[in-house]
Amino acid sequence: MYDVNAIRRDFPILAREVNGKPLVYLDNGASAQKPQVVIDAITQAYSMEYANVHRGLHYLSNLATEKYEAVRGKVAAFLGAKDENEIVFTSGTTEGINLVAHGWAMPRLQAGDEIVLSVMEHHANIVPWHFLRERQGVVLKWVDVDANGDLDPEAVIAAIGPKTRLIALTHMSNVLGTVVDVKPIVDAAHDRGVAVLLDGSQAAVHRPVDVDAIGADFYAITGHKLYGPSGSGAIHIRKERMAEMRPFMGGGDMIREVHKDSVTYAEPPMKFEAGTPGIVQQIGMGVALDYMMGLGMENVAAHEAALTAYARDRLAGLNWLNVQGNSAGKGAIFSFTLDGPAHAHDISTVLDKKGVAVRAGHHCAGPLMDHLGVTATCRASFGLYNTTQEVDRLIEALELCHELFA
Amino acid sequence: MYDVNAIRRDFPILAREVNGKPLVYLDNGASAQKPQVVIDAITQAYSMEYANVHRGLHYLSNLATEKYEAVRGKVAAFLGAKDENEIVFTSGTTEGINLVAHGWAMPRLQAGDEIVLSVMEHHANIVPWHFLRERQGVVLKWVDVDANGDLDPEAVIAAIGPKTRLIALTHMSNVLGTVVDVKPIVDAAHDRGVAVLLDGSQAAVHRPVDVDAIGADFYAITGHKLYGPSGSGAIHIRKERMAEMRPFMGGGDMIREVHKDSVTYAEPPMKFEAGTPGIVQQIGMGVALDYMMGLGMENVAAHEAALTAYARDRLAGLNWLNVQGNSAGKGAIFSFTLDGPAHAHDISTVLDKKGVAVRAGHHCAGPLMDHLGVTATCRASFGLYNTTQEVDRLIEALELCHELFA
Repeated sequence: MYDVNAIRRDFPILAREVNGKPLVYLDNGASAQKPQVVIDAITQAYSMEYANVHRGLHYLSNLATEKYEAVRGKVAAFLGAKDENEIVFTSGTTEGINLVAHGWAMPRLQAGDEIVLSVMEHHANIVPWHFLRERQGVVLKWVDVDANGDLDPEAVIAAIGPKTRLIALTHMSNVLGTVVDVKPIVDAAHDRGVAVLLDGSQAAVHRPVDVDAIGADFYAITGHKLYGPSGSGAIHIRKERMAEMRPFMGGGDMIREVHKDSVTYAEPPMKFEAGTPGIVQQIGMGVALDYMMGLGMENVAAHEAALTAYARDRLAGLNWLNVQGNSAGKGAIFSFTLDGPAHAHDISTVLDKKGVAVRAGHHCAGPLMDHLGVTATCRASFGLYNTTQEVDRLIEALELCHELFA
Repeated sequence: MYDVNAIRRDFPILAREVNGKPLVYLDNGASAQKPQVVIDAITQAYSMEYANVHRGLHYLSNLATEKYEAVRGKVAAFLGAKDENEIVFTSGTTEGINLVAHGWAMPRLQAGDEIVLSVMEHHANIVPWHFLRERQGVVLKWVDVDANGDLDPEAVIAAIGPKTRLIALTHMSNVLGTVVDVKPIVDAAHDRGVAVLLDGSQAAVHRPVDVDAIGADFYAITGHKLYGPSGSGAIHIRKERMAEMRPFMGGGDMIREVHKDSVTYAEPPMKFEAGTPGIVQQIGMGVALDYMMGLGMENVAAHEAALTAYARDRLAGLNWLNVQGNSAGKGAIFSFTLDGPAHAHDISTVLDKKGVAVRAGHHCAGPLMDHLGVTATCRASFGLYNTTQEVDRLIEALELCHELFA
């Protein structure tokens, strides 16, 4: 039984007020709140169990190393990866995708080689590829979404040409909530010898992910959206791709030997983890993943599906409001504009006065904004602790906006 | 009045026991412990004040942004930088130096160009330059330290040739405790149009730093050694160098506009800060810097100078122990080996049984180990909360080692 009220009590910030109103936190697409167990784990780590990892032999260093390295297995379990050595720790999806761009793509792709992207990618999955376009003449090939915000797998597959080296796609749009049917794309890409990177920043938060079943080459997640600490994250990289990669950042921990005139590197995944890592953040992310797995990702997904259906219905009842993206299987992310002169920023400011936190702007999705013909939207993005009552609070606040700006 | 016992009470972990003995934490060179104010700031941020920064307009996002961005000014104040826009947030020194290697050096240095390094650099300030050697034929030119572990500024200056583009030096050795007289090096380098990067990972922990007075182009620090959270850090980059740099990682926050066929970048420092940053870690680092500035870095330095003198005397009394590095102005870092068959790892294990945490190994300083003709040392590294009584505990434990292994 998924008891959302009990779950809410696990998140201390949800009990607070904002502008004299109980907080309705609908900015989960940007970052999620943290359960007490995560906060407690951080406090415990710094108060009683802290030292640098890997290179020490004393008690605290061994303890910290044990707790830190145990997170690799938790990430593997969470993502359905059989081999925890395919998990590289990162500071988030942005670093994960940059690791692939710098470590795998830059030394391999030539001028004229192509990377296929969807128009609804987040900047984290666009700008690293623009670097390859700017610096080495790689061609970016864009696939549009349809009027509902759906991405047709066949359209992506049709974009694969003889020069295509990589397909880089979001698994779930951070603006439209669209979930991409990635499996047929991965299969077709692999048939043609093309690698696939999936940006799991949003998808992994809202539904069970099985990277071994999907079979993508790279699958990036970010801890702060997964109810874990800021600065935590990981990327799953298949062994064959790891073997093709050069290191990204140089420093401690990622080397075997360093001399004046030579350097040799550690085996993956350590090869891709330079310097003192985000020790306590990653420990906190492990606790967050345990928390989610404890709830059961199927149960989280079911709860959010019900929320999505309810929110979709209620928003559809506002005939002066336009939701962007109406994919049948969409997740609990609603971007919208209002008829009339109100800018998304004005709407979000009014909502905030009512205690309702949403985001306004381009949501780091410039090409999608161009495609939709807007400069900004408001976005209400839900998490595992949100309720239908909070949808009602959102609707009330939107009705007030309509009155104010109509 | 510097009350070290009162200071110790600010650090909860220092009250704990290890292996049934009160903890004597002498592994500060690897990472420092955290005062309660830092732990409390993290708890407060996650419990009451958390949201993603920069792109939101709601109350919590504004609050988090305000707290996060305020840290830039704290870092500037701590480092003596007049302009806080010369501070780039990083996840630590490793990312800071890699930012310079990827963003400044890689697009500028040609085959045959030289980078001057000292033999006592940390791998974080070596491996990124090995990348340039491996990938584009840049030449690494090494300057040795003398028998005391001192680095003669004139020797560094003499190494500057017509092909030298960068001098990359530690400000304080993490193995020998040697403090480098960097100012004449910077002046001579600038006279010859050569840039200077300083690795301040250790120096900034132990003494006041004034980057405007030193005048280096790049000065990197790491928060977890500065009594702040893991995964925090910053680098000071002079404006003229920032203007020469291309971005390192691509993603959100570092762009102005992203379209299908073009991208423009934000102004520095944001240009170099991609994706959701380590929000809470950086807030915690700000609190740690406030804590240190509250104590006064002159006072910290004076306390540690007294500790260094005491430890140096007591260690000199052990005629079966060899301290590596005997620079007159050295900081509170002592690397040593014992006569006889005991490996550094064995020594550290015995010390640990007595509650004394030291590090054993190559300390991420391979070329220095080669230079010293050892494969590993034990290292006792002191912090602002250590005491002469703890030096005595170390000496007692070392005497036990000598008995056991002699």
